[in-house]
Amino acid sequence: MTSLRVAFQGERGAYSEAAAVAFFGDSVQPIPYNDFDSVFEAVNTGQVDRGVLPVENSLAGSIHRNYDLLLRYELFIVGEVQIRIAHQLIALPGVSLNDIKKIYSHPQALAQCEQSITRLFPYVERVVTYDTAGSVKMIKEQNIRDGAGLASQRAAAIYGMDILQPDMQDDAENYTRFVVVAREPEIPAGEAKTSIVFSMDNMPGSLFKSLAVFALRDIDLTKIESRPLQGKRWQYFFYIDFIASQYEERGRNALNHLREITSYLKVLGSYPRGV
Amino acid sequence: MTSLRVAFQGERGAYSEAAAVAFFGDSVQPIPYNDFDSVFEAVNTGQVDRGVLPVENSLAGSIHRNYDLLLRYELFIVGEVQIRIAHQLIALPGVSLNDIKKIYSHPQALAQCEQSITRLFPYVERVVTYDTAGSVKMIKEQNIRDGAGLASQRAAAIYGMDILQPDMQDDAENYTRFVVVAREPEIPAGEAKTSIVFSMDNMPGSLFKSLAVFALRDIDLTKIESRPLQGKRWQYFFYIDFIASQYEERGRNALNHLREITSYLKVLGSYPRGV
Repeated sequence: MTSLRVAFQGERGAYSEAAAVAFFGDSVQPIPYNDFDSVFEAVNTGQVDRGVLPVENSLAGSIHRNYDLLLRYELFIVGEVQIRIAHQLIALPGVSLNDIKKIYSHPQALAQCEQSITRLFPYVERVVTYDTAGSVKMIKEQNIRDGAGLASQRAAAIYGMDILQPDMQDDAENYTRFVVVAREPEIPAGEAKTSIVFSMDNMPGSLFKSLAVFALRDIDLTKIESRPLQGKRWQYFFYIDFIASQYEERGRNALNHLREITSYLKVLGSYPRGV
Repeated sequence: MTSLRVAFQGERGAYSEAAAVAFFGDSVQPIPYNDFDSVFEAVNTGQVDRGVLPVENSLAGSIHRNYDLLLRYELFIVGEVQIRIAHQLIALPGVSLNDIKKIYSHPQALAQCEQSITRLFPYVERVVTYDTAGSVKMIKEQNIRDGAGLASQRAAAIYGMDILQPDMQDDAENYTRFVVVAREPEIPAGEAKTSIVFSMDNMPGSLFKSLAVFALRDIDLTKIESRPLQGKRWQYFFYIDFIASQYEERGRNALNHLREITSYLKVLGSYPRGV
């Protein structure tokens, strides 16, 4: 039995890798890619079995880039997993807080730890890296003894580094939701969630009608978001997640009904609801 | 006649300052503050007449932090303005592209120019600064001749710097919407927009009912977004903008109706609709 090959964006130890392990278990074979596009491409061409991609963060909101890629590629969401983001301050063994002159991490992690950094190190230099875990890898490879990275606990373990200060994020309620994508759809067993994107030419009455499609069938929503199409006043994309499968009658009827009133509709996938 | 004092987050030349000038005109007196909290505080204590704050970006989504502050402070939205974000590569006069070893900017600007940076400078170092315009100010003050900043055209003009390369952002469709806040509400003349935040204990039926409040009165929506309350399954905040004033009967009736079915409702303000 060979283990599942799963693409994620970032270096080994990235939060996306932690999400892959949380979803598939320790036997998974996570494979790092430089950017989101490459993850989609790897799944699309069959280099890997699955891809794991962040779609929304509780502080930063929806990651529109991945919604755009979900529209562009013909892949299917087959699962979801949510993990808590906790940035650790990570340095080489033997390095202490007083040694730190530079802090390396991904821009968003630096921003999410801004107050903690300022409190601990009023005069430290912040250095952007392409990846949270990548900053830890670089500190290790270049033997940087006056710097620390901000990354996951998993990154500290993978690179054999020490955690100088745990939980650096300013807001403890920091969660990211990831979706798992595959080339073929899967029919979910148990409680299912379905993610869709649609657009309508005119928001007012038609948004109400589109929600009626779900309300009239007692289908719950877990996400709704409008995204204006720039330069097109009154035109929007809507992201909706609802609790039903497109493979059960209720979900199928709702989607057929929705097609009557939308100018564009794409079903991104039905999948078991995450916990 | 004294000019209006308007608080914004960032250094002189920040996009928020450009938004303030776009809204109030050249006679405005923009006053920089370090963070969003300080802008709210400055308006609240009467140090300034108005504050200008970003609430959503077409690529990065809603800025939840400012929604949180709008809930915490008793200020009122009295206007809105949208500007296009175009990052210029800015350096000291006489510096050329070949001299550049480091690029300085705010994390989000660096991320939004990632592909352009990699194409122009495969081996350049990215250095995070607290502010786009602040990076230009620093390059000027420290006479950094091997570095460039990413910031607005306005920042280049204010600090007397050159634009080495215009429009560095990877996605041309990059817009930020700002709101103008004041201590006292203003009754808008002409077409008005109203921004509200509300929560309901259960999303499914009640979201539909809450939209009925608007649909039944032919009131258009321009934004809807759900934001899950962490740790509280099925509990959400909703952000809605609708085209009507709370001071006209239709808008007042809709809000009264909405109060019947929500567990929490805050009207952030009614204001003239921006162009």
